[in-house]
Amino acid sequence: MSYLRHIAACNTFDPAGYRPFLVDGTAVGWVRPATARLLARFPATFRLEDQAVCLHPGLTSPTARSAAVADVLAELAADGSIEPLRDELYAAKTTWHGPELFRLDRTAAPLFGLRAWGVHATGWLRRPDGGYRLWIGHRAPNKRVAPNKLDSLIGGGQPAGLTFRDNLLKEAAEETSMDAALARTAVSCGTITYAMESETGLKADTLVLFDIAVPEDFTPRSTDGEHQAFHLMDAEEVLARLRDGDDFKFNIPLVLLDFCIRHGILGPDDTPEYEALVTGLHREHPAAGR
Amino acid sequence: MSYLRHIAACNTFDPAGYRPFLVDGTAVGWVRPATARLLARFPATFRLEDQAVCLHPGLTSPTARSAAVADVLAELAADGSIEPLRDELYAAKTTWHGPELFRLDRTAAPLFGLRAWGVHATGWLRRPDGGYRLWIGHRAPNKRVAPNKLDSLIGGGQPAGLTFRDNLLKEAAEETSMDAALARTAVSCGTITYAMESETGLKADTLVLFDIAVPEDFTPRSTDGEHQAFHLMDAEEVLARLRDGDDFKFNIPLVLLDFCIRHGILGPDDTPEYEALVTGLHREHPAAGR
Repeated sequence: MSYLRHIAACNTFDPAGYRPFLVDGTAVGWVRPATARLLARFPATFRLEDQAVCLHPGLTSPTARSAAVADVLAELAADGSIEPLRDELYAAKTTWHGPELFRLDRTAAPLFGLRAWGVHATGWLRRPDGGYRLWIGHRAPNKRVAPNKLDSLIGGGQPAGLTFRDNLLKEAAEETSMDAALARTAVSCGTITYAMESETGLKADTLVLFDIAVPEDFTPRSTDGEHQAFHLMDAEEVLARLRDGDDFKFNIPLVLLDFCIRHGILGPDDTPEYEALVTGLHREHPAAGR
Repeated sequence: MSYLRHIAACNTFDPAGYRPFLVDGTAVGWVRPATARLLARFPATFRLEDQAVCLHPGLTSPTARSAAVADVLAELAADGSIEPLRDELYAAKTTWHGPELFRLDRTAAPLFGLRAWGVHATGWLRRPDGGYRLWIGHRAPNKRVAPNKLDSLIGGGQPAGLTFRDNLLKEAAEETSMDAALARTAVSCGTITYAMESETGLKADTLVLFDIAVPEDFTPRSTDGEHQAFHLMDAEEVLARLRDGDDFKFNIPLVLLDFCIRHGILGPDDTPEYEALVTGLHREHPAAGR
């Protein structure tokens, strides 16, 4: 078996099945034909062209765009054409620090193939022999996505209007009851990216990664019910499960592989896939450069 | 000023100015028209097609290819058509762990736009306030490439037939007089890649990175004359010089930016270029996927 297959499983996007989604002439995402047909019912908000789906050029301000899109999404959710909305707003933009083009409900980001951001933290300890142990979440059986699968220690989607670090602190408290002093020691260490076709559209995700060196007496405890348990695993066991099984939620192997590469647990001489892993974990969003 | 400009400066490759270089039907590099004209003098070794330059298909073994290419390069170097050879062999392959297609003198790798590998190590210490200090090399005035420029602590091209780690240990001794016990604590932490047009052709480089936590009483000392001095610099000073100046050898900013991202010295909330830096440092070789 292979580590790379997890990256392949998260990078299933084939642009042939999509039309670019343009806002004010800038490609910011990708729309499926079935979604385009739904949007065609709202010609005051979306303009369909042969080669693209455009937010209507008459909507020139972020506020006007957000309001018009919210109306469309509410109507589509009400008649069951799309999944129920989650009342959490995502910012539509081409880079996190770029200008917000509009905001929309988190549920709808994949419908437009918009870039979405999240945070993940790996909690780690050293063994006396120098090896690593990692805290691994075990997702609850009632989760809509990946029930009962293994998970990172802390993770969550990135709402508009919050910094990555503040989002991590919030999720650390909610998901693991970690005290704020420990959570604030989290070290940012890069990003991973992937573009994955999902039931509802294209997930073009960037996960901002943090490492947290946790003390021996730290034990995560779920407060929001997202996890049924947490397991402290040797890195070697994590890698064996990644290599040979599918125990983890689809995107978590990428988080853990990046950790193992950055900390020398997977090395360049002994890992034939090393180079492909490093470049595969850090792809650009497919709308980039248009 | 910007950090990204250093990545842009190392990614100047424009395929419009090149023809793919094929070995046994596989694209492994890129050749300039001027180089193709030189190679056209050797039709038993190279076959020029309209859209590609091919190693002659009659050369089917790595040994036969290496011998034929060596003869061509010796003749071209002798008449001054290419730079003098260095008598250090590089392996032509599409990934480090893939099969060797042939070997050729290191000088000629850019002529064919072949992938080339190297190692770099960053030597670091923590300050009492938690900040980082980095050992920075200062290149000798007589270096052919980047004389007097600032450098990483340890770096070197990757010869065929050596592991990355063994090459690092060799370079650590030669370049810094580091004792082997300390050098062996080096932690591998990923790769950076770039594709840069140079005077002689395309440098498609992958640098395998290591971090070395050095003790307070370590002081690097050049044994091979590559460096005139070493400076222990606060990470903040390194970043200020990267942002505002061009004090470093062209590819060293990429090594140091990757270090600063992995260690949280550059963070995702405060660095507008963060995402572009992470993806920009980890591009695939332009022949990949052909």
